[in-house]
Amino acid sequence: MNIVQSKTSQSSLSPELIAKFRNIVGDKYAMTDPADIAPYTTEERDLFHGHSPLVLRPGSTAEVAAICKLASEHRIALVPQGGNTGLVGGQTPHNGEVVISMRRMDKIRDVDTASNTMTCEAGVILQVAQQRAAEVDRLFPLSLGAEGSCTIGGNLSTNAGGTTALAYGVAREMALGLEVVLADGRVLNGLSKLKKDNTGYDLRNLFIGAEGTLGIITAATLKLFPKPRAIETAYVGLKSPADALKLLSLSQNEAAGTLTSFELLSEISVDFSIRHGIDVRDPLESKHRWYVLMELSSPRDDARATLEAILAKGLEDGIVDDAVIAANLSQRQAFWKLRDEMSAAQKPEGGSIKHDISVPVAAVPDFIAEADAAVIKQIPGSRPVSFGHLGDGNIHYNVSQPIGGNTADFMNRWHEVNKVVFDIVLRLGGSISAEHGIGVLKRDELPDVKDKTAIALMRAFKAMLDPLGIMNPGKVL
Amino acid sequence: MNIVQSKTSQSSLSPELIAKFRNIVGDKYAMTDPADIAPYTTEERDLFHGHSPLVLRPGSTAEVAAICKLASEHRIALVPQGGNTGLVGGQTPHNGEVVISMRRMDKIRDVDTASNTMTCEAGVILQVAQQRAAEVDRLFPLSLGAEGSCTIGGNLSTNAGGTTALAYGVAREMALGLEVVLADGRVLNGLSKLKKDNTGYDLRNLFIGAEGTLGIITAATLKLFPKPRAIETAYVGLKSPADALKLLSLSQNEAAGTLTSFELLSEISVDFSIRHGIDVRDPLESKHRWYVLMELSSPRDDARATLEAILAKGLEDGIVDDAVIAANLSQRQAFWKLRDEMSAAQKPEGGSIKHDISVPVAAVPDFIAEADAAVIKQIPGSRPVSFGHLGDGNIHYNVSQPIGGNTADFMNRWHEVNKVVFDIVLRLGGSISAEHGIGVLKRDELPDVKDKTAIALMRAFKAMLDPLGIMNPGKVL
Repeated sequence: MNIVQSKTSQSSLSPELIAKFRNIVGDKYAMTDPADIAPYTTEERDLFHGHSPLVLRPGSTAEVAAICKLASEHRIALVPQGGNTGLVGGQTPHNGEVVISMRRMDKIRDVDTASNTMTCEAGVILQVAQQRAAEVDRLFPLSLGAEGSCTIGGNLSTNAGGTTALAYGVAREMALGLEVVLADGRVLNGLSKLKKDNTGYDLRNLFIGAEGTLGIITAATLKLFPKPRAIETAYVGLKSPADALKLLSLSQNEAAGTLTSFELLSEISVDFSIRHGIDVRDPLESKHRWYVLMELSSPRDDARATLEAILAKGLEDGIVDDAVIAANLSQRQAFWKLRDEMSAAQKPEGGSIKHDISVPVAAVPDFIAEADAAVIKQIPGSRPVSFGHLGDGNIHYNVSQPIGGNTADFMNRWHEVNKVVFDIVLRLGGSISAEHGIGVLKRDELPDVKDKTAIALMRAFKAMLDPLGIMNPGKVL
Repeated sequence: MNIVQSKTSQSSLSPELIAKFRNIVGDKYAMTDPADIAPYTTEERDLFHGHSPLVLRPGSTAEVAAICKLASEHRIALVPQGGNTGLVGGQTPHNGEVVISMRRMDKIRDVDTASNTMTCEAGVILQVAQQRAAEVDRLFPLSLGAEGSCTIGGNLSTNAGGTTALAYGVAREMALGLEVVLADGRVLNGLSKLKKDNTGYDLRNLFIGAEGTLGIITAATLKLFPKPRAIETAYVGLKSPADALKLLSLSQNEAAGTLTSFELLSEISVDFSIRHGIDVRDPLESKHRWYVLMELSSPRDDARATLEAILAKGLEDGIVDDAVIAANLSQRQAFWKLRDEMSAAQKPEGGSIKHDISVPVAAVPDFIAEADAAVIKQIPGSRPVSFGHLGDGNIHYNVSQPIGGNTADFMNRWHEVNKVVFDIVLRLGGSISAEHGIGVLKRDELPDVKDKTAIALMRAFKAMLDPLGIMNPGKVL
């Protein structure tokens, strides 16, 4: 990846300054040994590699504030990091920045079942937050592949999406209040439990999704939801994305807010998952061109009847060719396993050029048809592998290399393929990053695809909130 | 009301400049005659009075942009106005500003039932938007007293709440994309239909709820929802806000997202409504200290059974003393009439000092108990009239004057009573403006109740986006 140098330089990180940073967090939580630092400078997929002279692990908001203040005084660039599971290089110190790992701030400060709120520090692991909610008979609905290691702070900084956004919205919609440390060390105290608060400008949403470039989210008050009593899951075979869209519409009319997932899966993505995934079986007896994995979650025990009614109507209308409803929890988990293994299952098929795009829901069938045609024309034999959250118009549109082709040659065409796909996305009114963010991976494309006034405002906000450019420099903008 | 002068002056509005403004919108839509202007300078309740030399009624985004550009060049202050139904003086030209009435921009640009979106210009009346959604078998859920005259642009600029926020959120949560004209005439083109878009900072939410002080919202892409098939409404008598809170919790567990309204009404507010409201009858035979008006909206025909189950459990648990379910549409409308007449019904009882506050949902019973005691201690004989959206922690906490007391003397204590109430609100982690906004009414209190860093950031955003201070000056900040 071509990473532009940031304007700050860490050459000024003298031993004296390192000692000052160390004093803030304590010896135990300031790391300078390359072996200790290594886990923070690269990421799981080994796609992005950074380097850093210092990793700090603050234990409180006051410590984060002191770090930022000191960094401002000495123009030291910082990279905040949660679970280090981001997919666009946003959490990596590409230019020797100091890493602030937020993982130690892992307290759940408050759980309020009457107000249906939970206040978590930034370093709380998503799965821990989900479990804590479940313990008090509530649901914290955010759910994504990395939930065992990603953090609430990272989820909010990247405005994570996942498989439940259809019913509950993205991370942005789950946060009632935020505590944020600004670049100069000031603390924005906005940990509100309020569902309605019209006292002035909304500041919260500017920090959510800003990928740590405007400030560091240290805690958040999150919404809790009633825990569903009945969850019913179906795996459906059908002919086309257009039919899947009809099934979505039918399902929303019948199930409304209880339709909590609606995943569209192409035949090849299912094939890959069955071929390469661990313990993945085909839920249906015959092959179909497209599949839908859909789930209803209801506070009552009516989800099964509703799901059956939807599928019966779908069969009757000729939209659905075949369908199976999970008979028990282990079958349900097997359905989801097929979906969850989909990303990993592309690896054994060689190089894969990836896109995380969204278009208006109605435009998904056109997008897939046009992108498939364009990509196959561009690289004959290449294999589009598309799957994703149809209800959100969000498709993970990946392209696997031709069988037997040269992987390096194929991967070198990453930006060229991006261009073809993004042109179609933009023409359809879509986004080149639906849920993964910009980071460094899509930073250079952003000015070309975004409204000019929006880019100008983004730069102005960045200059205002981080005039020295020390907050995750070189990311997003 | 004590309105501070703005820093801009309209003395520079020469006949030549008026002619230039007139040229932008056309003769017919530039008004200088005081009789034509009067409807735009005062509001329904006659509480705020402004004055203006010029009212412009642009017909397009390009015209709004041209107005802002010209106003910037000549430092002419502007007040954007929708349906002129705001309750805090935000839409009134207190200092002779030019009024930009957005009512002519009333086109619904697009309705997309597959993507479940509707793109409305700012001047579309809320009720028209609701009706258009209903025509295509969808729901646009925002609903409030002024819906027959308020506009989408005003709803978003003030982040309107209303009676359905419990299930569908406030106006902010219904907007996917915005088109905004900035102070200098630049147009931010953000009319996205996307449910997921993580390409850079969230700009939309800064303009929503900014009360026209950062830019003028000219159009918005709104979410549509499945139209409920079954709506069931109950009117419940109970002993206390604490019991109402228990009923809320029980209802959310049983009905989850299908619980679409949950209004808490005090005995005196119901009495006033029955006494003074037009065609208002008491749905229950005997009196209770507190009432709840609750509604379930379901895509299926199960709402009745669920509501009955909730009420049966409530009776069994001793939370509910009596309850009646509306047997038909006209009974349902009668229940809501009792609620809708509540604001107007306070007038015949003399002076009323009003608050639109929110606290964490769990804190509502404490808030009401503490505020009642404090206010009655402060002004013996004064009558707290509280009602509101319990599910959002949002109480319209009004105080009627003592029977037979002097109205002017009572009303002169407005700020003194505010202080007592707001102190309790703040101690409980609440907001002094839950849904009506700041405008001029609460502007001077804001710096005392808001986080200092938040206020500093608000001022910085204002200075950045409106350096000349021409956008609705003197409002919010």
